[in-house]
Order: sequence, then C-alpha cells, then structure tokens
Amino acid sequence: MATGTAPANDAFLRACRGLPVKRVPVWFMRQAGRSLPEYRALRGEGSMLEVIARPELATEMTLQPVRRYGVDAAILYSDIVVPAHAVGFGVDIVPGVGPVVEQPFREARDLNRLPPLDPEADTGYVLETVRNLVAELDVPLIAFAGAPFTMASYLVEGGPSRTHALTKTLMYRDPHLWAELMDRLADLAIASIGSQLDAGASAFQLFDSWAGTLAPDQYRRFVLPASQRVFSELKDRHRDSRAPGIHFGVGTGEFLELLAEAGADVVGVDWRVPLDDARKRLGPETAVQGNLDPAVVLAPWPVVAEQVTDVLDRNAGRPGHVFNLGHGVLPETNPEVLEQVVELVHGYQAAP
Amino acid sequence: MATGTAPANDAFLRACRGLPVKRVPVWFMRQAGRSLPEYRALRGEGSMLEVIARPELATEMTLQPVRRYGVDAAILYSDIVVPAHAVGFGVDIVPGVGPVVEQPFREARDLNRLPPLDPEADTGYVLETVRNLVAELDVPLIAFAGAPFTMASYLVEGGPSRTHALTKTLMYRDPHLWAELMDRLADLAIASIGSQLDAGASAFQLFDSWAGTLAPDQYRRFVLPASQRVFSELKDRHRDSRAPGIHFGVGTGEFLELLAEAGADVVGVDWRVPLDDARKRLGPETAVQGNLDPAVVLAPWPVVAEQVTDVLDRNAGRPGHVFNLGHGVLPETNPEVLEQVVELVHGYQAAP
Repeated sequence: MATGTAPANDAFLRACRGLPVKRVPVWFMRQAGRSLPEYRALRGEGSMLEVIARPELATEMTLQPVRRYGVDAAILYSDIVVPAHAVGFGVDIVPGVGPVVEQPFREARDLNRLPPLDPEADTGYVLETVRNLVAELDVPLIAFAGAPFTMASYLVEGGPSRTHALTKTLMYRDPHLWAELMDRLADLAIASIGSQLDAGASAFQLFDSWAGTLAPDQYRRFVLPASQRVFSELKDRHRDSRAPGIHFGVGTGEFLELLAEAGADVVGVDWRVPLDDARKRLGPETAVQGNLDPAVVLAPWPVVAEQVTDVLDRNAGRPGHVFNLGHGVLPETNPEVLEQVVELVHGYQAAP
Repeated sequence: MATGTAPANDAFLRACRGLPVKRVPVWFMRQAGRSLPEYRALRGEGSMLEVIARPELATEMTLQPVRRYGVDAAILYSDIVVPAHAVGFGVDIVPGVGPVVEQPFREARDLNRLPPLDPEADTGYVLETVRNLVAELDVPLIAFAGAPFTMASYLVEGGPSRTHALTKTLMYRDPHLWAELMDRLADLAIASIGSQLDAGASAFQLFDSWAGTLAPDQYRRFVLPASQRVFSELKDRHRDSRAPGIHFGVGTGEFLELLAEAGADVVGVDWRVPLDDARKRLGPETAVQGNLDPAVVLAPWPVVAEQVTDVLDRNAGRPGHVFNLGHGVLPETNPEVLEQVVELVHGYQAAP
C-alpha cells in the first residue's frame, strides 16, 4: 500500500463521491497523447507499448496535460491492452490501427495464454510510473483497465471491429467458454487496477468502450456479471481508501443504469445522451462524467463555449458531475481550445 | 408514372401503413450481396458501380434473395452513392473499404460538383433495372437513397469514418455552407427516389446509417430539416400511390421520435433498442422495422429462433411491424439460416 498523502486538489474525488465542490472538476480522456506538441516531440517511432514500458517517459507524458491544462485529475499514460500483453497473449498497438492480436482467441486452449497477472513481475514498469507520479502530482491519479467485454472484443476479433460479429458469435456459440474468457479478463482488470491503487492511484476507470454494440439483454446476460465482479472485488480490496470507480462506455445510452448496477460510483456518458436525461436515468446516487462531443472542440470557440455551457447547465449545479469529453481527445484537437475549456468549466457558476 | 398492377403480395405495404396482416412481412437489408453463393458466382471483380450500371445483372441480383428466401419485399440492388457518382462528384466503392471520394467536399465551390440529378439521363440504368423488376416481381420493390447527413459524411470525410469529425466540424464552422450541402443532397435523394417510384417501385427507404453519431440536438438542428424535406416532397409528388417511406439509422435510439418527425411512415430500429421500447417511444401512429442483431444469425439455430421470437413477442402482434435485421446482412451469414428465419417469422402467431 502506498502511504502517500492525499492529493492537494480533491475536487475530482469529491465529485466522484457525490460531494459538493467549489468548482466543477474536469479532465479529458486521452488528454495525454498525439494532440499535444510536447508529446509528439517525445514520442518517437515504434509501438506505444515500448513507450509505456519506460517509466521516465510514461511519467512525463502523464504529467504534460496536467501542467498544460490544469486539469483536476491525471490519468496514467498506458493502454488497456497492457495486462494482456504483459501475460504474453501476443498483442501489439499498431499506429493508425489500434490493438492488433497476432493469434486471436478462438478456443478453450487459448485461455492458457491468459494466465493470472503478477503485477510487480509482469508490469513493474507501470507501477514505477504510478509511484513516480504520485510523488509529483497534486491532483489524483486515475488508474484504469479495459473492461472484460471490450478486452474480449479485441482478443477475439484480432483488432478493432465495426460489427463485433466474432465476439458475439463466441458468446452465443459457447457461453461456457465465453464466461471463462470473461472471468480471466476480469481477473486481469482486478489485478491491474488493484496494483495501480496499491501503488498510490486514488480512483480508477474501467473502459468498456465497445459495450455499446450490445443490446441491453446481451449486456445483462453476457457482460454484466464479469464487470460486476471487477467493481465488487476492487471495492473489497480497497475498502480503506474507498477509491471511486468510473464505468465508461460509448453508445451505451440504452443501458446506462446497468453500467451503474455493475458497481460504479460514476458512470461515463457519451454525447449522445443529454446529461440531464442521463442523470434522470441514473438517479441521484450515481455521479456522472462527461459529456461534450470530442468533435465539438474542433469548432469555432463560440460554439465550443455554448456547448460546454450546455453540458454544465444540464447538470444544473448538482453535486456528482465530473466534466469530460464523451470519448477521447481527437488527435487533431488544438490544445489551446482545451485550455480554454478548462478555464470555462472552472469559472462556471450554475444559475441559482 | 409506371402503370403496373399492384404486387400480389401486399403484406409489406400493409404493415408499413399500419394495417393488419395475415403474417408478419420480412425482408433483410443487404439481402442481395456477398452472403449469397449465387451472387458471388455472378459478381466478378471490379467496382460495384459497374455491376449496378448493368441492368440485367442488377435485376438478377435483386431477384436472387427474393427467390431464395421468399421475402415479402425486394430492395433494388444499388448503392447510396450512385446519385452522387452519377452527377460526377467523383466517388467509387472500393471492395473491403466502402465508398471512397477522391476529392472530399471542402468548400463552397465543391457544391458545383453536386448539380441536380437528371434521373433518366444520369441513372437510366437504375430505372431500367426498376422497370425490369416491377415486371417480374410479385412482391413490392423498395426504392432507396442515402439521407443527406450520411451522404454528407461520405463526401466530407472522403470515406467511412469512426468519428465523423470533419463532417461535424463543417457543420459548426460554416452552418450556411452545411445547409447548402444538405440541400443539394436532399435534392439528389428526392430526384433519385422519385424516379424509382415513377418507374414502379412501391415504397422507399431513406438510409441515414451514420446519424447515430449525432446527439439529439445536433440532429434536430443540422439534419432534420433536410430529411424532412425529402419526405415531404416525395409525399407531395407521389400523393396518388401513397408509397410508404422508411427512415433508417443505426444507434439512433436517443432520437427515434425525430426520425418519425422527419415524415417517415416506418422507423427502422437497430437491435440496441428493444422493440417494445421503440414502439413506446414512437407511439401507435408510426410503424417499425427491425430489429434482430445481424450477428445473432451467426449463432446456433436455437439462439436464432429464441431471438427472432423475442423480437416478434416484443411487438406482441400489433399491426405496423416489418421484420428485418437491425442493420445489413453480414457477408459471413449462412443463407440457410435466413431461410429458416423467414419461415419462423411467417409461421409466428402472437399470443392472444
């Protein structure tokens, strides 16, 4: 367990817990990365996995957006495929494509390629990065992992997919093998996030980016149990720190309440669901994160300002809102616009 | 105007109009195409646009699934980019990629590349195919076109896109140019569908496949007016035949009612929204089409049967339901399974 002191700026953690805050906290998914010139200057060629494996670089890349934007949380510079890669499943990140799996998951014996993660031995570099960061940051560090479904989709499809047809086919053809796969992936997420929290991260986000390809019934039957286990085991393990958990998906408007039911303190909402609707569907107990369309920040500033304000107005000053985009920062984003967004969010006062 | 007699099997048209039917009508989006061995035998190499330009081939490809499956409607073998290609915008369909635009739409002078469509002169081959089909078919033929937004997305992005960032940026940066572009594309859709109806098609579908990338407010402000004009002008022009109009999108659950508000008789619903919910949101005046997950038909038959029955049960025997998939047939689909689906739908009796 990290003994570190609590971060000076606790607005993000308070909002995650539904407590009142002086100003709405804000961070951006994929705030570290290609949109920043200082990132591109350091990045070099080669796989992202090589950068992640160098703690001094990964630390710097995590810090860059915190310095530039003054956001209220840092998110570890890493990737959801790191644990699967680290246990030897055989996955790489190809620039311009995304995760690519050499031998996709096909049958029961492929489970052998997903042994338990030994965080210190397999991903010591991640934990070194976390420890570096916790020593430097005065905002909370968010740990993260891929949710079992989204991870399964990459491992089964062999890469990004529009239809997720192979994944759904496995689900239906062999529900027992599917459940075992989801179990292994839940174990990976628990071990990975758990170790990041032990190393000093203060909150975590479970990315189920592609869950929105599912119908609510498919989600409930084939996905919810594994994601539920991730949240409940992490809650048990980290009872003392009470690190809040964020559950994020895209296009999941039809089952937002199931994302909360999985055990999340905060549900990530994409731009498709107006934030006031999202809060209605989720009820007052669940905090929300979001939900500006990432494409909106490419528009002229008056449009950006209007849309940022619209998101804030829809929350209407209720506690339990973390401002964010509805998905990751697009690489073509102008960082100066994000600077202005942070300023606008921080200066916002809800109408009384 | 085609004088042709009405098709013998009118279950599809009756369901579109909300009238009672003896058995639920069914057809499949992309029922003609790569999933059929008889299609692959005829298809050959080269661009799909070359096949579409040969009426004898396009006629045969339209008929193949009708013969094999006994579906209740035929849909013209064509593509949504045909009108833009025919007026000389410069777009091709690349196998494995989709529509590819050589010089994407960027500025006002690109409007010159979207002159009005003269259907007989520019797409005489399409109309010849329609006339051939109407003479042969005993089920209704569905005309179609791409909706202004989805067409704009292809023309602006230059091809398929995950984020539609350039399209949204144009929308926000230059709303006036955007409106002009949408207007031109609405004109193309009206001219294209109108001419197919004149040549004897009995219904039409407006494909707004990518509208689900928008938030409801974005849709209402930037898309609805142009799509509304497509439906209202077609309704005016074809007052006598009262050809029903279907409005289809994917991931549009947050604004299904706006798809109806555009003027559709039937709203296409993807698998993400349970059909009973969709009917609740749309009210009794609007018929629905859908909504089996296209990936489900890759599952073992008992699962397919259960899921088909679930869709039908959720409609609960109400008039105004056309059975379909929630999106196009996947190329890896086994046609024998679709044959069984048609049989199951046709034999279905709702619980009294």
